[in-house]
Amino acid sequence: MNKIAAVATLLLTFTFNVSAQEPRPSQRPPKVILIIGDGMDQNQVTIARNYLVGLNGRLTLDTMPVRSSVQTQTVVEEDPRMPEYVPDSANTATSMASGIVTSTGRIGTTAGTDLDAPTIMELAVAAGFGTGIVATSSVTDATPASFIAHVAYRLCEGPRAMAAANAESPPLPTQCPADLKANGGKGSIAEQIAASRVDIVLGGGQRYFAQVAEGETTKTVRDLAAANGFRVIDTAAELGSLKRGGKVLGLFAPGTMPVQLRGAGGAQAQRVLRDESGRVVLPDPFVCEPDPAFGAMPPLAAMARAALTHLDDGRSFVLMVESSSIDKQSHARRPCGSIGELKQLDDVVKLAVEYAGAHPETLVLVTADHSQAAQLVPERSWLGPNAASPGNFARILTPEGAIMGVNYATNDSTLQEDHTGADVPLFAYGAAANEVPAQVRQTDIFHIMLRHLGLKPPPAP
Amino acid sequence: MNKIAAVATLLLTFTFNVSAQEPRPSQRPPKVILIIGDGMDQNQVTIARNYLVGLNGRLTLDTMPVRSSVQTQTVVEEDPRMPEYVPDSANTATSMASGIVTSTGRIGTTAGTDLDAPTIMELAVAAGFGTGIVATSSVTDATPASFIAHVAYRLCEGPRAMAAANAESPPLPTQCPADLKANGGKGSIAEQIAASRVDIVLGGGQRYFAQVAEGETTKTVRDLAAANGFRVIDTAAELGSLKRGGKVLGLFAPGTMPVQLRGAGGAQAQRVLRDESGRVVLPDPFVCEPDPAFGAMPPLAAMARAALTHLDDGRSFVLMVESSSIDKQSHARRPCGSIGELKQLDDVVKLAVEYAGAHPETLVLVTADHSQAAQLVPERSWLGPNAASPGNFARILTPEGAIMGVNYATNDSTLQEDHTGADVPLFAYGAAANEVPAQVRQTDIFHIMLRHLGLKPPPAP
Repeated sequence: MNKIAAVATLLLTFTFNVSAQEPRPSQRPPKVILIIGDGMDQNQVTIARNYLVGLNGRLTLDTMPVRSSVQTQTVVEEDPRMPEYVPDSANTATSMASGIVTSTGRIGTTAGTDLDAPTIMELAVAAGFGTGIVATSSVTDATPASFIAHVAYRLCEGPRAMAAANAESPPLPTQCPADLKANGGKGSIAEQIAASRVDIVLGGGQRYFAQVAEGETTKTVRDLAAANGFRVIDTAAELGSLKRGGKVLGLFAPGTMPVQLRGAGGAQAQRVLRDESGRVVLPDPFVCEPDPAFGAMPPLAAMARAALTHLDDGRSFVLMVESSSIDKQSHARRPCGSIGELKQLDDVVKLAVEYAGAHPETLVLVTADHSQAAQLVPERSWLGPNAASPGNFARILTPEGAIMGVNYATNDSTLQEDHTGADVPLFAYGAAANEVPAQVRQTDIFHIMLRHLGLKPPPAP
Repeated sequence: MNKIAAVATLLLTFTFNVSAQEPRPSQRPPKVILIIGDGMDQNQVTIARNYLVGLNGRLTLDTMPVRSSVQTQTVVEEDPRMPEYVPDSANTATSMASGIVTSTGRIGTTAGTDLDAPTIMELAVAAGFGTGIVATSSVTDATPASFIAHVAYRLCEGPRAMAAANAESPPLPTQCPADLKANGGKGSIAEQIAASRVDIVLGGGQRYFAQVAEGETTKTVRDLAAANGFRVIDTAAELGSLKRGGKVLGLFAPGTMPVQLRGAGGAQAQRVLRDESGRVVLPDPFVCEPDPAFGAMPPLAAMARAALTHLDDGRSFVLMVESSSIDKQSHARRPCGSIGELKQLDDVVKLAVEYAGAHPETLVLVTADHSQAAQLVPERSWLGPNAASPGNFARILTPEGAIMGVNYATNDSTLQEDHTGADVPLFAYGAAANEVPAQVRQTDIFHIMLRHLGLKPPPAP
């Protein structure tokens, strides 16, 4: 079966499942779909709306019936009583996945004391519920990792990073020595995923699973996953023809999956130039175009649909779907990249809302983990022709024929932008959506999901 | 009576009024309190929360039961079919006050065609309802002006700006020649306020009312206001001892009222310095302190309380209260200034919620007009010791002993920051709050208020 036919079949299968069941909310096992836009703050949403649907259009996000705002919470590793005001994807995902406040870089572990905090996926597995993790990053990246793994530092993604730790004397704390199996730990993030009981894990990250596992001579992490019952797939075609049942690990790219959009010809934000008289030379506006690197990747919505189909067996389930590169493309000052990945998220929101419409026992939550650098600014400064962004700046020609300014100026490094610390949006739909308070802390998301699933909060780690 | 006694009396009076009435929502004339934080985007709220109440604290804003998000809408003056992505306070306030989308700088008038659009205050007056406008800016500044005046350009605040227009040949379009009374217009913003039927107008702006009115030889705009039945007051003491009834115009400062907080010793964001090796020399952290310039100004909550007391006569009313300088202090790169003015807003929210608690026929809406420049960033860049903000940067020492980074980098002018274009928050409390959709356009705020007041939308201008 070719790819298009495979996807078409999947669509039909899914639609059939939806329409074949009659909604009987109170009698059905509760379900949770948590959709995360990494770095998807309000600037990102507005920028994407302006480009994708225009002044009078609406994203699916804009039609969500309940909106809240999420205070991120971060503490300092060396003194966990002390707040830190800008989070990362590791500590924020840990807050959502495990209901604890921790320090930046930590995956499912406590600040200072390095104790494992049970995740919602682990609690769901223990209760006999279905579980799924889908991301456009490597599945070992901070957000997906925090839902199933426990390591001291987010870069301990595969055995090689762990082995590096082993070789150091003393090992760097960022290399997770305590998490080595040889030291009584659970191994790298990839090894923990391979050893997990999650029903379906889809995303990038082939390279971490291709590494020889700790303590093995030839067996890779992928081999361990297969030995643990995972069917491991690598292509959109395989995803499209996926049979239900069993555990699935889909790895579609060596690391982060390529993104859907880029600036025309690769255009991105850049330093603003000046002419001899000091006047700003505004950068040429550009449009967004499909990124050829995306190639035969499965879109995020296709992965989410496959996961939903896989999990739609009548049991309760919790599915986390992340559009990971809204953030990564903002770090890299690529506004079209972020816009395209927000579109990928919006497509998943549409899918989840449709699913919840047919399965009203489903709570859909859509949120971001933290804020990001991009700012929607005037396409030419109101301060006159001698003023412009001191950082990196893009002028995007929108389908409406107007020009939108996007600014990246959190730091002056040539490498990448920093995160920002503003509250992030939270949208809810479906069962229990009206019980979501208008303002929450990020750890509340864990408890909202637990409550809907009827699971008890675990004791503090 | 001294000031403190006057304020205490006012507090008692107000409390008495609240407790003396029993809530019978369905039978009472509906009321609207619209609270605007100028430039109060999500970065501003989070920055202020971190400083004012800390990681585990909550602003009154955070306790509002309903949250929505507002898409600002702006069009180009020369081609009103074309969107512009970053608004100003004039066009956004016009959207809220009159339900129309217009171009930047316009006050209650249409883009391109310069037609007057009726405001909610005018519609309320015509219906026999009470009306009030309170701001910490000059009452002639863009936000308050848009609720009662109609001019082509926001800087036409007083007769002098209008006379300048008259002197030009041809006059600049930013000087509102068509609005001159001599040309059949309604005069400057101050003159329109003086001629209005608004019950109570409180804020700054003495200088515009001290100007000789157009067509007069000695009579000032203030004289015209008095002739039109306004009691004109100038001090917090007068405000504290205000008798109810009649129309009141309170002008407490020559222009914008001073703000409550400043950086210690006047500290604000600054360009980041480097040592000889190119390493960033991080600016010293500072705390916020009371700004001595605030002096004997009435706090915004005292003005709002006086307005509520004045309007609390059993009739329907619509009251707009703006904390104006969250925006102005962000333009000027003064994070403590914005924090203090957000605190002023939060105090008004508390007051409004208390009022609505005792008067459940009251709909309280809290929103911002547009986003602003300030970003909550790491207090030292995660990119290492050679990276820092390319703009102006402040490190604020919070009461919890941590350091919060605030970045201003929308442009490299030494003068001020630009606005930004992200959606802004909307909070609701009280009657009809649950009918506020989770995502609205800024013109919807006009219609939400109209609907609650039982007023018909006016025909398109």
